[in-house]
Amino acid sequence: MKNKQIILVKKPEGMIDESHFAAVFTDVPAPKDGEVLVKNRYVSIDPYLRLLTEEPATFSRGVQVGSRMESWSVGEVLESKSDAFKPGQFVVGYLGWQEYGLAEARDLRRIDPSLAPLPAFLGVLGMPGITAYFGIFRYGKPQAGQTVLISAASGTVGMTAGQLAKMHSCRVIGIAETEEKCHYLVEELHFDRAINLSQRSLIEGLKEDAPEGIDLYYDNVGGETLDNALLFLRKNSRVVICGMISQYNVKTPYALKNFDRLHSARATLKGFIVADLMSQWPEAISKLERWVKEKKLKHKENIFHGLENAPKALHSIFTAAPIGKTVVEV
Amino acid sequence: MKNKQIILVKKPEGMIDESHFAAVFTDVPAPKDGEVLVKNRYVSIDPYLRLLTEEPATFSRGVQVGSRMESWSVGEVLESKSDAFKPGQFVVGYLGWQEYGLAEARDLRRIDPSLAPLPAFLGVLGMPGITAYFGIFRYGKPQAGQTVLISAASGTVGMTAGQLAKMHSCRVIGIAETEEKCHYLVEELHFDRAINLSQRSLIEGLKEDAPEGIDLYYDNVGGETLDNALLFLRKNSRVVICGMISQYNVKTPYALKNFDRLHSARATLKGFIVADLMSQWPEAISKLERWVKEKKLKHKENIFHGLENAPKALHSIFTAAPIGKTVVEV
Repeated sequence: MKNKQIILVKKPEGMIDESHFAAVFTDVPAPKDGEVLVKNRYVSIDPYLRLLTEEPATFSRGVQVGSRMESWSVGEVLESKSDAFKPGQFVVGYLGWQEYGLAEARDLRRIDPSLAPLPAFLGVLGMPGITAYFGIFRYGKPQAGQTVLISAASGTVGMTAGQLAKMHSCRVIGIAETEEKCHYLVEELHFDRAINLSQRSLIEGLKEDAPEGIDLYYDNVGGETLDNALLFLRKNSRVVICGMISQYNVKTPYALKNFDRLHSARATLKGFIVADLMSQWPEAISKLERWVKEKKLKHKENIFHGLENAPKALHSIFTAAPIGKTVVEV
Repeated sequence: MKNKQIILVKKPEGMIDESHFAAVFTDVPAPKDGEVLVKNRYVSIDPYLRLLTEEPATFSRGVQVGSRMESWSVGEVLESKSDAFKPGQFVVGYLGWQEYGLAEARDLRRIDPSLAPLPAFLGVLGMPGITAYFGIFRYGKPQAGQTVLISAASGTVGMTAGQLAKMHSCRVIGIAETEEKCHYLVEELHFDRAINLSQRSLIEGLKEDAPEGIDLYYDNVGGETLDNALLFLRKNSRVVICGMISQYNVKTPYALKNFDRLHSARATLKGFIVADLMSQWPEAISKLERWVKEKKLKHKENIFHGLENAPKALHSIFTAAPIGKTVVEV
């Protein structure tokens, strides 16, 4: 029995794609006391993975050339040397792009697969959903009736953040790049408005859809979208910097022209990374699970098949950017 | 008896100077019930005045062509139709660049001239000092032992903010452009370090003086200084945007390259304008007055003589940028 893994074979400069990765086979490791061997069923594809390949990595635990790619995954316990887990149970862990992963029992979260399809535990019920939860409630803190603008609104973080803001009685405007995505945001997720950037500029869209400005800008993309959104900040508004997906694959960062609007709007801006809040994830997970169960929170997953397609899937979220959560079935 | 006033005669594009103003004479107004006539002794010269001439004005109550320039001033009550004031008392008000000003009694603050020279009531004991107080304690919230970086550190806001941070047991680094200013910051105000931008770049200076980064950046200048300071933000650091003096006279705003550091540092940025807190100014004033009296807070004023020199004085704070508070003796 061999363990297929995807390793980084060269550091990307510019856009990441399949040329930066290769598949290798290693032995399947045997669990020691307190450890659990997991057979991965789905591995997670997230924008932040691109940052792990930077030198130095923007966030902790970068991936070096020759090392296995990191990521969240959902899988099934094969063998357990811990009383906390039994074979056949389903777990989420940070096991990376590989078929089999070993973890300390304390680093695994047991999940109930009857709640949602397994890939959803990497999306709305995983790191991206938790990100949206804290991004909205801890940092964005919109008040009922306020106008909330969300970029990359058809990604998992964006669509979850938008739905949470709607549950909180906000007026929610999403930004996306296709008619299909905008239709989904308004018709399926009940966003109040969606701005299709292939049809109108953000400035035109906000003049039409947010003539009185925005109270919270929840940003997942950075760059020009952020720059233009700053023009519409209302007095005492807030900006949450959750991600800057437009900047992860560029060599020269976008230079921001409208920074002064943060001053004139008396804005509060908060950059955050959900990994810093890990001890508080259970609070978010229990709420997200309840809302998914009650059908208050919708979700969508796109599945690539075959671990060897993980690099292609990663490339796709920066180029095609499908609706919802992208995962790879191992 | 005539009232000399300085009016705006054309909107500046780029640097503001004497060509944008003219002196005119009007009648001295007579106070009605509840009003007070004040003979201005000093009028205030502040960077934000430049913003009042923008179209639209960045902050409330812009100055139109043909109108008298606004500003804080300190003066003596000449005639009072209010029980709250008597002739001979000294007051601070928002009376503008003129010899005589009329105000509702409720809009004047009585001051005790034995506390400090009159110009100080427009500096450390006026709007700039109050700005530093709220900027540090309300928004910056540095903790004892943290490293605080302050730009335009030899201006009234900067020097007051730095001294407040020192009183709060922070390590304080000031940024200025001359040896004289840096000497003043370190020798007179007991800043821990001062970075003289005419001798070393901010990046070099911070590598030397803040090798572990900064916990709070208190920014008064914006532009390239801000951009470079962002590179040194520590995890969970804070940025207070108090002013952007480098940007007030430029036609094309500086484009910020290092915005992403606000995300990777998980920073909190807050833009603020002290006029929004006016109902809370008495809290700040009573503390600032006590600290000035106890000689815990030093201050410095530069006096231009003659109201007709107010435009020249305004130009000078953007070019020569003298140490401390600039006022014009009427």
